[in-house]
Amino acid sequence: MIESAQLAPPVFADIAAAAQRLNGKALMTPLLESQLLNDRVGGRVLIKAECLQRTGSFKFRGAFNRLSLIPEAHIAAGVVAYSSGNHAQGVAAAARAFGVPATIVMPNDAPTIKVANTRADGAEVIFYDRYTEIREEIGARLADDRGATIVKPYDDPGVIAGQGTIGLEISQQLAERNIQADAVLVPCGGGGMVSGIALALATRCPDLAVFAAEPADFDDTRRSLASGERHSNDPNARSICDALLAPTPGEITFSINSRLLTNGLTASDAEARHAMALAFETLKIVVEPGGAVGLATILNGQFDIQNRTVVVVCSGGNVDPAVFATCLE
Amino acid sequence: MIESAQLAPPVFADIAAAAQRLNGKALMTPLLESQLLNDRVGGRVLIKAECLQRTGSFKFRGAFNRLSLIPEAHIAAGVVAYSSGNHAQGVAAAARAFGVPATIVMPNDAPTIKVANTRADGAEVIFYDRYTEIREEIGARLADDRGATIVKPYDDPGVIAGQGTIGLEISQQLAERNIQADAVLVPCGGGGMVSGIALALATRCPDLAVFAAEPADFDDTRRSLASGERHSNDPNARSICDALLAPTPGEITFSINSRLLTNGLTASDAEARHAMALAFETLKIVVEPGGAVGLATILNGQFDIQNRTVVVVCSGGNVDPAVFATCLE
Repeated sequence: MIESAQLAPPVFADIAAAAQRLNGKALMTPLLESQLLNDRVGGRVLIKAECLQRTGSFKFRGAFNRLSLIPEAHIAAGVVAYSSGNHAQGVAAAARAFGVPATIVMPNDAPTIKVANTRADGAEVIFYDRYTEIREEIGARLADDRGATIVKPYDDPGVIAGQGTIGLEISQQLAERNIQADAVLVPCGGGGMVSGIALALATRCPDLAVFAAEPADFDDTRRSLASGERHSNDPNARSICDALLAPTPGEITFSINSRLLTNGLTASDAEARHAMALAFETLKIVVEPGGAVGLATILNGQFDIQNRTVVVVCSGGNVDPAVFATCLE
Repeated sequence: MIESAQLAPPVFADIAAAAQRLNGKALMTPLLESQLLNDRVGGRVLIKAECLQRTGSFKFRGAFNRLSLIPEAHIAAGVVAYSSGNHAQGVAAAARAFGVPATIVMPNDAPTIKVANTRADGAEVIFYDRYTEIREEIGARLADDRGATIVKPYDDPGVIAGQGTIGLEISQQLAERNIQADAVLVPCGGGGMVSGIALALATRCPDLAVFAAEPADFDDTRRSLASGERHSNDPNARSICDALLAPTPGEITFSINSRLLTNGLTASDAEARHAMALAFETLKIVVEPGGAVGLATILNGQFDIQNRTVVVVCSGGNVDPAVFATCLE
């Protein structure tokens, strides 16, 4: 069964409610800092390390919150999701926490570690071809067959509200340490995380500029922000940032982002790899390519950090060992 | 100038005072958990991720606390330390925070990253040969020449009290999440960290068993605990765990450890590498060989975790990229 989309965007109260539901379930991830990194870039960088979140990415927040919103009569039939891997793991872990079955539609080129972890949490994985098949159709068919509820990766108010709890934590952590930050840089695929964070900060820290960071050839949100209309990426584009390859901004996410984001920034694959190596060296965290794009936009100079204080979300760490090893060379 | 050693061991109040001094200076590191890791080992593992601490290891805690205790008339002349690298970085960062010069005596085979980071924090590095020279003598001569204060790596009450703040945080984090743990596994070189943690937990969680984890051929603390007297390691022994190569338990640290530790455990270099790879995969943290020895004693079965809940300190993440890459293979 496909629930009809609730198209009204979430509001601040939805994020506050999500934070209550996630309390004790998700980790309050640390805001990390390295003097070495600050010296290197000439400004102050605070890393919101969502790679340390349960399942290795922020996606558990949105998935768990969304599952909490499924009516009791429906949840036993389980959930269906489509995902390149991080949402897959988030939904699998949330379904396990609720004790219900999960079926995940994943691209056949998803990183091995993401497939293995999704299965380890008890989910059934069904593969599709990222470039020739439409995952939404496969997911809808499966949900129909099984009477299961679809948990969309980003364009859903419950998912956006869950990711928005990252913004609440950032505002709280900045206040505790008495830090005045200038901006927040957030990796962006379909825009669920950045829209949730922007929504939380619009209430809690309205002076903070929020930027979406995207792979250079997947800058649909940057171009859409510039024109005011949703644009798509070239279907022939490729990137190592497997978590950020959504074809176009979400409808709900873009309605928030077009109102609240300052701008979009981009980084190349080589710059993302460099950022992963720098995070390894100075912060001791494992960041996957897509998770490092925010930091990469500082290193490539698109975001000018000189004498400024910036929060950078490192959104995930689910990267195959061989890929990570090549980034360290 | 060498301060005469204050040989009385620290007490709980010294750790509480250290926590006050470190508040806002050191990071309250997270207690991480991975369902994948729990499933793999058959018990519940909570990782106290000190690799995420400022300077990439727990050592900043003890160094900063020790510098706070130097009389105002003496501190301007600076500090001298000898260290394989983590204490070096901790003292360099603490000296920078106090605005005083630091001179660090390091072995000429210290990891490149540790030397570079120590220098990046403004310290002067002087090399010695780990196997033919006595670093205490070199340090004493330098301190004498410069009127500087020696900051010992472990056998000092102020240093032990600083490291003990890890134990305070563990007790607080377990209480917040309402977790009853059975044991704490702590990497051990000279014994500063494990003695501080044991001291904090003896007051806060007296039922928690505390274990020292050592490299297989550097099990001086394990053997000393068994016999009740301090034993040394074979000078010809070698290990990849560069942070844990102290020749013998400290006098003060052993006076605490012999009273409060349950036992010593060991792991081989290969087992430490395996633990590093598993921490990469399941926790998204960068752990250096010596920092992974606690986790390694679960993987090799020396600590039986079946159906138990264990806190494992991962004490540092300062590892050269090439070494880390080989562990991922």
